[in-house]
Amino acid sequence: MTATAAWGATAPDSGLNPLTIDRRALRDEDVAIDIAYCGVCHSDLHVARNDWGRSNYPFVPGHEIVGTVREVGAGVTRFKVGDRVAIGTVVDSCRRCDACLDHEENYCREGVTGTYNAKDRIDGTPTYGGYSAAIVVAEPYVLKVPDALDMAAAAPLLCAGITTYSPLRNWNVGPGSNVGVIGLGGLGHMGVKFAKALGAEVTMITTSPAKGEDARLLGADHVLVSTDKAAMTAANRSFDFLLDTIPVQHDVTPYLMLLDRKGTLCLVGMIDKMPTFHTGLLLGGQKAVSGSGVGGIAQTQEMLDFCADKGIVAEIEMIRMDEINHAWERMEKADVKYRFVIDMASL
Amino acid sequence: MTATAAWGATAPDSGLNPLTIDRRALRDEDVAIDIAYCGVCHSDLHVARNDWGRSNYPFVPGHEIVGTVREVGAGVTRFKVGDRVAIGTVVDSCRRCDACLDHEENYCREGVTGTYNAKDRIDGTPTYGGYSAAIVVAEPYVLKVPDALDMAAAAPLLCAGITTYSPLRNWNVGPGSNVGVIGLGGLGHMGVKFAKALGAEVTMITTSPAKGEDARLLGADHVLVSTDKAAMTAANRSFDFLLDTIPVQHDVTPYLMLLDRKGTLCLVGMIDKMPTFHTGLLLGGQKAVSGSGVGGIAQTQEMLDFCADKGIVAEIEMIRMDEINHAWERMEKADVKYRFVIDMASL
Repeated sequence: MTATAAWGATAPDSGLNPLTIDRRALRDEDVAIDIAYCGVCHSDLHVARNDWGRSNYPFVPGHEIVGTVREVGAGVTRFKVGDRVAIGTVVDSCRRCDACLDHEENYCREGVTGTYNAKDRIDGTPTYGGYSAAIVVAEPYVLKVPDALDMAAAAPLLCAGITTYSPLRNWNVGPGSNVGVIGLGGLGHMGVKFAKALGAEVTMITTSPAKGEDARLLGADHVLVSTDKAAMTAANRSFDFLLDTIPVQHDVTPYLMLLDRKGTLCLVGMIDKMPTFHTGLLLGGQKAVSGSGVGGIAQTQEMLDFCADKGIVAEIEMIRMDEINHAWERMEKADVKYRFVIDMASL
Repeated sequence: MTATAAWGATAPDSGLNPLTIDRRALRDEDVAIDIAYCGVCHSDLHVARNDWGRSNYPFVPGHEIVGTVREVGAGVTRFKVGDRVAIGTVVDSCRRCDACLDHEENYCREGVTGTYNAKDRIDGTPTYGGYSAAIVVAEPYVLKVPDALDMAAAAPLLCAGITTYSPLRNWNVGPGSNVGVIGLGGLGHMGVKFAKALGAEVTMITTSPAKGEDARLLGADHVLVSTDKAAMTAANRSFDFLLDTIPVQHDVTPYLMLLDRKGTLCLVGMIDKMPTFHTGLLLGGQKAVSGSGVGGIAQTQEMLDFCADKGIVAEIEMIRMDEINHAWERMEKADVKYRFVIDMASL
């Protein structure tokens, strides 16, 4: 394992050769996957830069993985060679805590094994992600990709998709819900598609009128430009659920004012210190600020099946592996509609 | 109306003579009530001091009112002279918005008419509260006091009671719920009683071991002393619902760490700027910070009936009207178990 790779320039000593990286020998429950596509998530860059102080180098990013089964272990029953499969952000968990037994492995009481930058629970070796030719994952954490889905455009569903689908489902968004999606990026564009497909009335809330028009093309019924004070006042106390996808620290006060009685603002992008807000905004109507992080394996499969049923995939821009550093730069400037996906044939 | 009253020393120009205060002539829907007892709420002092910047002087505090019907208007159907009745924090609302139609008048879209320091919706005269001999209130905002309840000890149910009952009910606390009540005062002691009566497992969370023991007498199953780091760590991620009754600004981080997956911390005491916390505490398990403010008339009646059924009243210390200033001083030091109630016979 050497530490020079295409993305090494951005992330010092962060890479391994994605073609020659060691993957573990198949255990009975393992599925070996040839990776076809991998989505580019903002988390990949955060870890490359050690923004969260938990990075272990060298590492291989990528947790929006789609490919085909190359080989299965002796105990594997649900998959066979050639099946279209996917891997998200979680490749193992304790499998016995209440969260795991409730199919919310993402909230495992003992902590999940992340698809990269974690340690295998059995032998302690590092986990390496999907910017790579192949990956080996235990069967319970492998997802089926329905035939109806384009493989490349399905890749971002594994993180951006489930991160937005899970809170919309768990807060019972559906017909009659007045939903606002705050921020139009990788997560936000999926939030609009899902909220609409679930039957809600959907408003894109954005600083940019142009993004608002883009959101209409994705299915948003309305656009609310957050810098327009009159429009924000008119929308006061009108939303049942706000999906806040803004990935940087921001004041939630203007959005809390949009919540209707018993409404919830759900954070899925801001992993940071919460700026202050007045608690009266919550007390005056039993309102809540919540958060959500990806989703369990069963719900991720439900989401993929829902996408197949509704004809939903991510909007993507395909890149070659050697374009990743430029893609990361553009992602930081939100210069992508709406998710980069790496074509692993370019490795 | 003159401006000298017993509590005037604490609240400059805040009083009216509670014996001679003008009450409006009965409208068809009105109920005139001889006040027997009035609970002393921390809000009374906040308004007396203009802590919230919205006080109109002179004013008469008091919104935990119990008494008997003296006279009814021509259109009143549910009450007759001599009935035991109660008035809480709300004496009118728009009666036509979605909140009012949903029996959540407390969250009226046009704003409620408070029991004191507000203006009557019809003639614009000031509303005066329960530190007084009598009050006139429209029938839809008058509550029945079940025979089983002691009238004096029922008074605090009208604010401290419903403020804690409403969130416990609306967040579906019941058998199987692991509930923590944070802070043991007027609200907290009702929170413990209600959570227990609803069937939950109840923990008093307090800085004071002595208060913990007091809470056991009220029905708490467990005590968690929040300054005991080992105990707090052991309780990490174990509560479904936390009722936070602390009435002053405080850091919620130690409490958010106690929330289990999908758990909610509900603020009912802190009306202030929220100190920062890390959003990861919400994202890691779809958790929420919420708030709640009193309750609707129907739910308040439900609460009174529940109290009668379960044998619940507030723990009170009875005072005379001329002791109110000293009582306010003691209340500020939390030197009361757990609610002062004014005996209006002392007027």
